[in-house]
Amino acid sequence: MRKPTHSQRAPGPGRRPGTDSSGRERLLDAASRLFAERGISETTVAGIAAAAQVTSAMVHYWFDRRERLLDALAAERLAPVIRRIWEQSDAERADAVAAVRGLVMRMLDVTEEMPWLPSLWLREIVQEGGLLRERVMEHLPRERIAAFRRSVAEAQGRGQIDPDIAPDLLFNSLMALVMLPLATARTWRRVNPDVVVDRPRLERHVMGIAMHGLTTTALARGARAARSAK
Amino acid sequence: MRKPTHSQRAPGPGRRPGTDSSGRERLLDAASRLFAERGISETTVAGIAAAAQVTSAMVHYWFDRRERLLDALAAERLAPVIRRIWEQSDAERADAVAAVRGLVMRMLDVTEEMPWLPSLWLREIVQEGGLLRERVMEHLPRERIAAFRRSVAEAQGRGQIDPDIAPDLLFNSLMALVMLPLATARTWRRVNPDVVVDRPRLERHVMGIAMHGLTTTALARGARAARSAK
Repeated sequence: MRKPTHSQRAPGPGRRPGTDSSGRERLLDAASRLFAERGISETTVAGIAAAAQVTSAMVHYWFDRRERLLDALAAERLAPVIRRIWEQSDAERADAVAAVRGLVMRMLDVTEEMPWLPSLWLREIVQEGGLLRERVMEHLPRERIAAFRRSVAEAQGRGQIDPDIAPDLLFNSLMALVMLPLATARTWRRVNPDVVVDRPRLERHVMGIAMHGLTTTALARGARAARSAK
Repeated sequence: MRKPTHSQRAPGPGRRPGTDSSGRERLLDAASRLFAERGISETTVAGIAAAAQVTSAMVHYWFDRRERLLDALAAERLAPVIRRIWEQSDAERADAVAAVRGLVMRMLDVTEEMPWLPSLWLREIVQEGGLLRERVMEHLPRERIAAFRRSVAEAQGRGQIDPDIAPDLLFNSLMALVMLPLATARTWRRVNPDVVVDRPRLERHVMGIAMHGLTTTALARGARAARSAK
C-alpha cells in the first residue's frame, strides 16, 4: 500500500472533512467494485483502502464501522440508481408500453455506467441474506412500483398489453433479463467463447423479448396495422 | 439430535453400504435445502445431519470431506436436473419455438419438484465464486446448447423467430425469467404482499413473455393468420 499523501491523511479531531472528500468518493467506488467481484464478506478494509489508494485509517475515519460504509454505499450509490430507474416522465406514466421501454433503457444505462452493478445486485441485493438487501429495500419507491403495476393492468384492460403478463411480476422479469446476462457473462463465455454481451446487442435482445418475445416484429406490426385499418 | 438407530450406524470397514442408502439420500436432500436457504459456507455438517436425522458420523461416513458432499450433490441432484431440462424430443429439435416451450416447461417442472432449486442456483451456481459453479459447469451439455443456438438462428432465417432475439443469450434469458422470481419471491412479497408466484401464474407469465412479450396474442395470431391467408 502506498504511503499517504498530505490530502489523504486523516484531518485532526473536530476538523470537518472538506477538500478531501474525493478520497471518500474513491473509497465508495472501490468498495462497489470489490464487493461486486468478491462479495462483501470476502473483502477487507485494507483491500478497499489499497484499491482506493488511501490508508486504512482513512477508511475508519470516513466510515467508523463496516455498517457505515454499507449505509453510505446504499444511500449514495444504490439509491440514486433506483431513483434513476424509476424516474418517469408524465408521457410514460400514461403509456405502460412506453414505461416498460423506459425502465429497460434506464436499467441498461446504469449498468453501462456502473459495470459492477449487476454482480453486486446478484450477490448482495437480490439474494436472501445479501448484506445490502435491507438497505436497498428502504429506498424502493413502493408507490411508483404500485403505480406501474396498475398502469400495466389498465393497459391490459384496453387490449394494449397481453393478459398473459402478470403486472406484479413484470418489473422483476425485466430486471432479470437485463441483470442476469451481465452478471453471469464470464460464466457463459466459458460455455460459448463467442458470446458477446455488449450494450447494443443486449438492448436489442431484451427489448425484443419484452416487446414481442419470439414473435417477429413484422408479424406484430402487420397485425397492428391490420387492426387499425378496420 | 436423535440417537442413531441400527440402520443409521456406520457399517464396519470393508462393508459396502447397501440397505442403508436412504440415509445418504436424506443427507443429500437436507443439504440441498439448507444450502439453498443459508448458503453452503453458512451450513454446518451438524446442521445437515440434524435435518437428515442422522448422526454427524454418518455424514463423514458417506462424504469424508465437504468436497465429496458437493460432488455428490452436483452429480446426483443437479446433473439430473440439467439432463432433464435439456432432454429434447426429435419433434422439438426440428422446431425452435417448440424447443423454447419445452425448455421453459421443464424448468418450471424441476423447480416445482425441487423448490430449493432456484435459491441454490442463485447462491451457488450462477454466481462467480459459487461453490457448485465449477461442478455444474462440467455437466452442461455444451453440444446440445450449441444445437439449440443454431436451431434458433435457423428459425430466424426462416422468419419464424424475430431477428432481435440473440440466440446465444436466449437460454440465459429463459432461466432468468423462471428462476429469479422464484428465488426472490419472499423479497418481492415484502414490496407487494399480494404477489403470488405459483406454477400456473408463473407459467402463463414466462411463456407469455417468451412467446409474444407485451404484444397481445390476439394481435400476433391475427397477423399470422393474415400472413398465411396471402
